[in-house]
Amino acid sequence: MSLTPCYAAQSATAPLAPYRIQRRAVGPKDVQIAIDYCGVCHTDLHQTRNDWGRANYPVVPGHEIVGKVSALGAEVQHLAIGQTVAVGCFVDSCRTCPSCQAHWEQYCLQGVKATYNSPTQDPGGYTYGGYAKSIVVDQDFVLVMPKGLDSAAAAPLLCAGITTYSPLKHWGIGPGKTVGVIGLGGLGHMGVKLSHALGAKTIMITSSPNKAADALKLGADEVLLSTEAAAMQARANQFDFLLDTIPVPHDFNAYMPLLKVDGTLCIVGAIGPTATLNSGPLIFGRRSVAGSLVGGIQETQEMLDFCGQHNITSEIEIIPISEINHAYERMLKSDVKYRFVIDMSSLS
Amino acid sequence: MSLTPCYAAQSATAPLAPYRIQRRAVGPKDVQIAIDYCGVCHTDLHQTRNDWGRANYPVVPGHEIVGKVSALGAEVQHLAIGQTVAVGCFVDSCRTCPSCQAHWEQYCLQGVKATYNSPTQDPGGYTYGGYAKSIVVDQDFVLVMPKGLDSAAAAPLLCAGITTYSPLKHWGIGPGKTVGVIGLGGLGHMGVKLSHALGAKTIMITSSPNKAADALKLGADEVLLSTEAAAMQARANQFDFLLDTIPVPHDFNAYMPLLKVDGTLCIVGAIGPTATLNSGPLIFGRRSVAGSLVGGIQETQEMLDFCGQHNITSEIEIIPISEINHAYERMLKSDVKYRFVIDMSSLS
Repeated sequence: MSLTPCYAAQSATAPLAPYRIQRRAVGPKDVQIAIDYCGVCHTDLHQTRNDWGRANYPVVPGHEIVGKVSALGAEVQHLAIGQTVAVGCFVDSCRTCPSCQAHWEQYCLQGVKATYNSPTQDPGGYTYGGYAKSIVVDQDFVLVMPKGLDSAAAAPLLCAGITTYSPLKHWGIGPGKTVGVIGLGGLGHMGVKLSHALGAKTIMITSSPNKAADALKLGADEVLLSTEAAAMQARANQFDFLLDTIPVPHDFNAYMPLLKVDGTLCIVGAIGPTATLNSGPLIFGRRSVAGSLVGGIQETQEMLDFCGQHNITSEIEIIPISEINHAYERMLKSDVKYRFVIDMSSLS
Repeated sequence: MSLTPCYAAQSATAPLAPYRIQRRAVGPKDVQIAIDYCGVCHTDLHQTRNDWGRANYPVVPGHEIVGKVSALGAEVQHLAIGQTVAVGCFVDSCRTCPSCQAHWEQYCLQGVKATYNSPTQDPGGYTYGGYAKSIVVDQDFVLVMPKGLDSAAAAPLLCAGITTYSPLKHWGIGPGKTVGVIGLGGLGHMGVKLSHALGAKTIMITSSPNKAADALKLGADEVLLSTEAAAMQARANQFDFLLDTIPVPHDFNAYMPLLKVDGTLCIVGAIGPTATLNSGPLIFGRRSVAGSLVGGIQETQEMLDFCGQHNITSEIEIIPISEINHAYERMLKSDVKYRFVIDMSSLS
């Protein structure tokens, strides 16, 4: 039995620190991956600190994983040792429920097996994520990285990328559509890039005038300041879709009148009680408030290939694993443009 | 100039009382209708009492109007004197905006002209509704009543009927779908009848066990008691669509887990701030909360014809106009099965 170096949280208050975990042996359908980079998602921070009351310690976070195949099970045909692959937010699902049959494993009715903190038969009893030297994953949940993308900058595609790509695709975004991306952080900056690449008119909606220049650089056609009532009023009934990436509870009602009849505001950032719903803008325009969770494996591969074709990656700041606790503190202050990625060679 | 007898509210506190209004002269495209019956909608109560702060007194309520053509403008070709016709919630729109072009006059971007309490060039400056002996309406906003339907019982189709029919059709309800109708009042009882007639499995969702027998009689396949946690849990992920007809602020979040992935809860009853939205059930199932407002003229005619084919009308209690204030008090106590309709022959 060999132990894999990783960083783990041992309690809600303990900082992430060096740890050793046992990974399962490589089964016939498994892929062992030597992790090169792992993106740092807000979920990591929430789970390690038990903000949602669901942490099972030790928590080894990380679900934006890029690395190279280091071992293959006997039945794995489509991958090769040394190939650059990726793992996203989940590593298994029931495979038989209507959601799984529809390739929406993220909505598995039996509960998807998350990349970390989910019950498993593996050693430890709960899945361990990507703040580690290696991981073993069923071949059906391993993504193939397209050639040409920088591995570090591509890591956040596995969560921030698919979280924004999936709803844009589901709601039919493309040429002729007008999309508002609300909030410019890890999710929002990917939303701007992807909406623009999909051919939609993309308008960054923010309360921070100092984000305007960045938004335009990232691909936004325009910036709309949500604090300017007249500008908001002038934009009423103009948006087909609003991608709401704000990560904390907020009053989404203020954005609803921007939508055309039948338009949808989709929440992808803030999970939980958010604000009092005003049904008026919904009723008087058949508008919807929806939510969306990452994407299925098939769609995640499609997203990676799309990003490969359009040379889309995340804007990142690479850190050594020893900087992770400091990075969390900076994330709480939105002091990152726009995603931290851990260089896993810094872990030993 | 002749004055039309009607009932009007003169202030937020004054009860509805006899009044005289001047209708506009019958123009070349106009239809004058001698009103036989007018349904009583919760909106009437809200507007006469200025609950929404938008009343323009005198308010003559009534937008579920059935009567007979009593005069025709020179250019009106498709109607005949004596024909039974109807008027619903609005009497004009801009006719040029994208919503009007799509036959969704109810979402007219210039603001639809409501049947009462809307600004107008007509005498009085605001439209006057159907608690009256007659009304004059542009031919394009006059519906044709299908033969065979009881005029009194059909009157509520013009609001309660189309308010439930339109979202059921918009969200593709038909055979193979499972629909939950939440709340069994004026809207809910029409929702049950229409969902059933459209071929969907229709489940009445209510907190009142004593409504179960009625719901089954109206066409519900089953009744689900929202107060029974185990029953609600057992129904999770089973509904394609939830039609939420509850007329007051309420916690709609409790119903969201009933929806399948991509399911929609549509609010048609309670307008305004409702409850704190929990984005969790939305995100973890790509579910939506939506709203819907009556229906366009074309769709309202389609609904009337559908009701004619399926012999669907409302369950009503006919009252003389002199009983209207008492009827309002009973409505506030949900003491009506399920809609009051005024016999306008009682007005002189």
